[in-house]
Amino acid sequence: ELRDALLASFGSRELAGLHVLVSAGPTYEDIDPVRFIGNRSSGRMGFAVAAAAVQAGATVTLIAGPVSLDTPVGVARRIDVRSAAQMHAAVLEAAAGADIYIGAAAVGDYRPLNVSAQKLKKQHGADWSLQLGENPDILASLSAQTAHPFLVGFAAETHDVASYAQDKLRRKGLDMIAANQVGEGLGFEASDNALTLYWDGGALELPRASKPELARQLIARVAERYRAVRS
Amino acid sequence: ELRDALLASFGSRELAGLHVLVSAGPTYEDIDPVRFIGNRSSGRMGFAVAAAAVQAGATVTLIAGPVSLDTPVGVARRIDVRSAAQMHAAVLEAAAGADIYIGAAAVGDYRPLNVSAQKLKKQHGADWSLQLGENPDILASLSAQTAHPFLVGFAAETHDVASYAQDKLRRKGLDMIAANQVGEGLGFEASDNALTLYWDGGALELPRASKPELARQLIARVAERYRAVRS
Repeated sequence: ELRDALLASFGSRELAGLHVLVSAGPTYEDIDPVRFIGNRSSGRMGFAVAAAAVQAGATVTLIAGPVSLDTPVGVARRIDVRSAAQMHAAVLEAAAGADIYIGAAAVGDYRPLNVSAQKLKKQHGADWSLQLGENPDILASLSAQTAHPFLVGFAAETHDVASYAQDKLRRKGLDMIAANQVGEGLGFEASDNALTLYWDGGALELPRASKPELARQLIARVAERYRAVRS
Repeated sequence: ELRDALLASFGSRELAGLHVLVSAGPTYEDIDPVRFIGNRSSGRMGFAVAAAAVQAGATVTLIAGPVSLDTPVGVARRIDVRSAAQMHAAVLEAAAGADIYIGAAAVGDYRPLNVSAQKLKKQHGADWSLQLGENPDILASLSAQTAHPFLVGFAAETHDVASYAQDKLRRKGLDMIAANQVGEGLGFEASDNALTLYWDGGALELPRASKPELARQLIARVAERYRAVRS
């Protein structure tokens, strides 16, 4: 009983000895020194995942986009980035030493093709056609490597989350994906969330709960699947 | 001496009896439920201006874009908005009862012409041309009204600040403009700032200082000019 109580209060140490890399938050793609394209990620889900991985005994590296959040206690290393290209580079470098990568960041898919060094002036009476190009895909880059960490992705969608998430799991060769309906008080900019986990041959619904609670449940399943496929 | 000490500690009450409307922060223009175009304004300069106006005895209404700042003590009313169109509507409504309007918000000049109700899916291998249209101009709208508040604008620029600010003062029919070089540790996202004030027939440099200190100096000059032209 004492052992159970200790396990419950200190975490199960199910990731002891493993290096977990977590990305969190949005990315901002600069248009000029003042304007940017961003997204509504607060970073709270990813930071909760990093905290839960620490609780489970992992050595945690956290790569964070522009957020205003304190580093969870026990995180071994935090790297702050702004753009998707910076996050791509930071994740790929850190992934070399990682056993598990959990991509909880909302990485911008597109960036302005021409970034102006000066603030762009308004052209009165004229519309503006902003040309955007695709950003590098972090999970796809990792998945293409011969030896890569156990890969966990997130799919945050407003519609058709389940089918999109399962397609992304297969298409990018992930080990697990956490699907996440955004909107209606859930997900981005909200304190609660709800996830459905998918992996090859399985699925699990994690009903609406606080982000820290969901992060603990996610980490428990990640540890279970990691042991099933990598041990 | 006691009177001077009290004035110094409680402010000079030079705006007593006046209603001051302040806008602050960025605006975010949604592309879809997840992505938006934003700008780097933290809102701290505008919030400091609102606090300084309270100290000077004014009744203050503060209209704030998406920021994570507490309302300064003594502000009579705070209205939170997200987009430039929302800020335009909120300012025009509140301006009807205001003696002075200080536009410290960094209002987005452009918004996506088509806002998607669903998260836009990435189209692999294809660039994206995002069509943007001009937003309504808050200061120009106020200036065009027969009876309007004393108008104070801001010009935050990376280059040619002085000439741009003086042109904006004339073009928009403002009573005063605060020019603000951004970058190099000043302005947006920084705790210090430096301003140059311009009005019809005058100019004043306010050297680098904290935003609260600059806000007090700005408010003193606004009160002076307001009395000169409106009393």
